[in-house]
Parts: sequence; C-alpha cells; structure tokens
Amino acid sequence: MTFKTVRDLETPSVLIDLDLMERNIALMQARCDDLGIQFRPHIKTHKIPDIARRQIEAGAVGIACQKVSEAEVFAAAGFNDIQIPYNIIGRRKTGRLAQLAKQADLSVTVDSKPVIDGIAAAAQAAGVKINTLVELVSLGERTGTTPDHALELARHIALTDNLRFAGVMIYPSDAAIRPRLLETLALLDRAGIPVETVSGGGSGAISEAHLLPELTELRVGTCVFWDWNCVAARYTSFDQCAMQVRATVVSANEPSRVILDSGSKAIHSETIDGQFGFIVEYPAARLHKVNEEHGYVDCSACPSPPAVGEIVHIIPVHTCVVTNLHNQIYGIRGERIEEIWDVAARGLVW
Amino acid sequence: MTFKTVRDLETPSVLIDLDLMERNIALMQARCDDLGIQFRPHIKTHKIPDIARRQIEAGAVGIACQKVSEAEVFAAAGFNDIQIPYNIIGRRKTGRLAQLAKQADLSVTVDSKPVIDGIAAAAQAAGVKINTLVELVSLGERTGTTPDHALELARHIALTDNLRFAGVMIYPSDAAIRPRLLETLALLDRAGIPVETVSGGGSGAISEAHLLPELTELRVGTCVFWDWNCVAARYTSFDQCAMQVRATVVSANEPSRVILDSGSKAIHSETIDGQFGFIVEYPAARLHKVNEEHGYVDCSACPSPPAVGEIVHIIPVHTCVVTNLHNQIYGIRGERIEEIWDVAARGLVW
Repeated sequence: MTFKTVRDLETPSVLIDLDLMERNIALMQARCDDLGIQFRPHIKTHKIPDIARRQIEAGAVGIACQKVSEAEVFAAAGFNDIQIPYNIIGRRKTGRLAQLAKQADLSVTVDSKPVIDGIAAAAQAAGVKINTLVELVSLGERTGTTPDHALELARHIALTDNLRFAGVMIYPSDAAIRPRLLETLALLDRAGIPVETVSGGGSGAISEAHLLPELTELRVGTCVFWDWNCVAARYTSFDQCAMQVRATVVSANEPSRVILDSGSKAIHSETIDGQFGFIVEYPAARLHKVNEEHGYVDCSACPSPPAVGEIVHIIPVHTCVVTNLHNQIYGIRGERIEEIWDVAARGLVW
Repeated sequence: MTFKTVRDLETPSVLIDLDLMERNIALMQARCDDLGIQFRPHIKTHKIPDIARRQIEAGAVGIACQKVSEAEVFAAAGFNDIQIPYNIIGRRKTGRLAQLAKQADLSVTVDSKPVIDGIAAAAQAAGVKINTLVELVSLGERTGTTPDHALELARHIALTDNLRFAGVMIYPSDAAIRPRLLETLALLDRAGIPVETVSGGGSGAISEAHLLPELTELRVGTCVFWDWNCVAARYTSFDQCAMQVRATVVSANEPSRVILDSGSKAIHSETIDGQFGFIVEYPAARLHKVNEEHGYVDCSACPSPPAVGEIVHIIPVHTCVVTNLHNQIYGIRGERIEEIWDVAARGLVW
C-alpha cells in the first residue's frame, strides 16, 4: 500500500510538517551561530537519521543520543560526532560504548567515580580513549554533582589512562546555574585542568544561553518539532509546532463526550493543565483523559462538536515520547506525503 | 548474544515471572469456570501469541484485540475466535476487518449507525458476514450507547445483509450497570431480537461478575500479569504481580535523590498516588517523577538508600502500557530466562 496524501493514512498517524521542521532547524542553527555556540541536536526527539542529517547539513556539530543502542544506530548511519550525556553503567553497555569509540568521535558524561571506573575498564579492554565530561547538578536536581565533587571526578578522569577529560555538562542549562558553573570552572582552572567543552541543554536552553557565555555547545531535542510543553513555556507558539497526530472521532453519542482513536498508545500520557493534547480544529475542547486506544474529549465548550468519523489533529504535550510510540512517522507538505520515515532508534531501551 | 539468566540482561528489562503468570492464568480460568462464564483474554496486556496460546490451552474461548492490526497478527498466528471491542472506522480499516472475517470467527462492537454502515459496506464488498455486538455505555462513560439507542442499532444490524447481530458488550462491566443491561435485554426480547452474547470486561470484572448473571463472557487483560493499579483496586496483591521492570541505579549523589535508568520509555507515565511504580526492594521509596530515560526516586524514608550500580525491580502502575514500549520481554523462573518473547503486536496503532 502506498501513501501519497494524508488522506491515504489510517489514524492515528504522526504527521511532521516539513516546511515548519525545516524552518525550526534553520532558526535554531541561526540562533546558535549568532551566539557563537555549537549546536548538537539531541536525536531523542525524532530518532531518525535522515532528520539528524538535515540538522548536520544546517550546521550542527554532531548529535547527542541518550542510549548506547541509539548511538549504535546513528553511528551505523554514518554519524561520527556523538555525545551520550548519560551515566553508562554495566559491563555489556560500557563494552558496547568502547566499541563505538572505534567508529565515531564519542563523548560521554559521568557524575560518580563508579561510573568513571566502569567506562575506563571497558575503554582499557578495547584499547580506546573515551572523551569524558563531568555533569554538574542543575536546578532540575536529576543527575550531576557539586563543584567540589566535579573537580574530584575531573582529576580522577585526568589520571585514568583510557579516558580524556573533555569538559562539563549541564542539564537543564538555566541561567541560574551560572554561579555553580563559574565556581566549577574556577576550581578546574586552579587545578590546571583545561576545559574544552561546556555543554548546555534542554528545551529552553537557547532562550537563556546569552546569560551563560561559558557555554561552548547546546544540546536541544524538541526544537526540531516543538510541542505544547514548549508553547506553555513560551519557547514557541502552536503555529510553529511541526508535529500533529491525525486522529478519528470514533464515538460521539453525546455532544459533551466525544471519543478519539488516539490514546496513550498514540499520544502518550503526559499532561499539561490536565490535558493530553491540543486539538487544532477544536481549541475549546479538552482532551482530558486517555486509555490506550481512546482519547476522551470534553466538547461542552465547543460551539459545535465533531461528528463520528471526523478527522482532527492533535498537537502533543511532549513530542519525544510520541515519536517513541510509532514505527513510522510521515513528513508532509500540505496534504502530500513526502517522507515515510522508519523511527530507526525507536524503543531502544538499552 | 544469548541471555541465560536475568544477570545477563541489560536494564531496563521487563521480566515476567512464569510461575506467577501460570498461576494467574489458571486462577482466572477457574473463576470463570465456577461462574459458568466464558473467558476471553484481552491480548492488549501482553501482545504475545505464545501467552495467548497458554490462555486458550487453559480453557479460554478466544481472544479480544483492540485493533484490526493486532487481530491480523493473532489470526496469522492461528487464533480463530477474535473479538475487536472497538468502533472500527475508515474504508481501509473496515476493508481489512472484512478480510479478517474470511480467516477467523470474528466479532466487532459498534455504538452508532455510521460505524455499522461502514462495516456493512466492507463486509458486502468482501462477501462476508460479520458478527456485530452493540456496546452499552457504562459508568466509565467512554464509548457505548443507551438502551433505547442500542435497540435501534440492534434492529439496524439485524436488517443489514452482511452483518449478524451477536449481542451486547459492556466496558467496564461493574455490577451497577445491571439495571441498564436488564432494560436493554428486555427491549431486545420484546422486539424479538435474540441475544447470543453478553460480553463484560475490565480488570475488576471478575469480582462483580456474580452480580451480573446475564454475562456470557468476560474480556480481561491485566489479570495475566496484574499491576499496581489492580493492587490498589484490591483485585490482587503485589506478590501476585508477574511483571517487574529490572532497573539500575545510575546516580546516587545524595541519599534522598536516587536516579534509575528507567523512565517513561521503560515504565510509561501513568501514576498512582503520584508515583510511577513500586520499587520492590525499597518499599519506602517514592518513584515520584520520570523523564524518558530517568526515574527520580525519593529515598528519604528508606533506612538505607541504594548505591550507584545497584539493581532494583519495579512493579509498574499499568502493565499494558509497559508491554507496548518494549520490543522483547523475558519470561523467567527464579533467575533463569526461559522465554525471550518478541512483543509481536507492539506499537500497532491502526
């Protein structure tokens, strides 16, 4: 079965507006160029080598992947500058990481000594040198460590044979982190440890990057498509969101209760303001609940609710988690399908 | 790479305790047998033909699938009694549904005239007769319709050449729905329309099935594995939950803030009591936030928090959405891996 226009697709289907995507790619690169920062798109948003290739062609320095298995897919597709901003733990994973270092210019981040030692052992066994950045804990309080401990880890890396200290990583790189970053950089400077890369990241990183002049690169994923989260955070607007999920109304027996064929298997379960997605054709509707295959829409505020069989388009709350649910997504111009992409790095949990 | 024991697996990995699964399958079948009701397992929970085969061997009458594409996978695997309790809309989907009716004893549910007419047109074009049940709206207020409208739809089906009225479907089949069910059955009886099947369903359906003696069959999915949702609803207990997600602690720089390598891509984003999963080894821990590859655990109530590199096991909030995220899941006895299952019907959104 060939798909020529969006009308040929069954629903739910994930559509990417190519004009908007290309504009988003160009705009992000231009902003980084203006700031004199390298752009390193995070591929977790699209998981598709062809889209990453367009980002590289626009000027990106390389890519970021969150998993060794994702990096393997992109290395096999010819990408040679790959960062994995994640603590890689476990003998098999670090072994695969070390093999990857033979194929690509690889860097990885760490926030503790056991993680460093595990990677070092694998690098030694494989006879490679792995570029290693230390993660500084940010206001998000996820992974990362303190300035003092970062210095200790940087020293440990510098003294470890098969590792090379490559710099500092922050996520998210809000401007408020600057005092902690400056403290870390001063400690490293005093210890005589040179810092090549200061890598920032997060959906909103670009809007505060001018307040963090120490950054040398930015890792951002969502900016290629954008989503409702990013609209709510005022990073963009709905009319710049390149991803929409095409859905069908499968039940509409009461005007206030309309059910879509798109639930948590199609649009995931993240919410914003108690809603699971924004319905473009019915801005007053509230997609307030999902089961796997059902989206519950309260249409009581809609002048005229949709009918059974009607097609609607949903802007997702979080684009990255949607891509991961679909085997294929579709690049469109107007109604015409120009690209049928396999989501090559989908579902890679290792 | 061969996996012999769970220690050979990288994390996150979905483990199914085979002893518990087999016990769950036997128990559910025995309960249905005791009630004199046919059991029709919903495959959305596991999406794996080999597990459905074990349910059939235990005595199940057939299976339920939520999508035509799922039904195609199971028909190809040799299943010949398949119900799709979903309004199938769209020329391609109804066409595929009609083709399936040539391969299997197929039934489908409807809640409106446009849905009936679409299926009828496809059945006519394919020269098949499709068993059609009318869905009665339940207290869950999802799909389904009222008793009066159900009668109207049943009449319409009975008068349509390529359809056969097969009965009434309810989800979820709580005992409180009985007055509405009895009203519907009385209307159908008065109209001289025989009702072959009264199909109930939902995780908790078995616990109230004795209060709905009109039911002829039960569709339940989660009972094969169970999950935290079902524990919270008192359908089961944690020690009967057959699915656990094996995870690694990737960061533990502060005793109260521990990060797992299992986030929304491994355990999904559904919550119960603000938590995304129950950590077996640390019952006092709270898995209170997820990103795609990170699970945030508050360990401040734990006597001694886990260390970096430590392995823990998570009982998911909702088992069905977890299966859908993984390409493979692993059947284990003790530490030994006995089954490596491809999740054959994973990610089938059409």
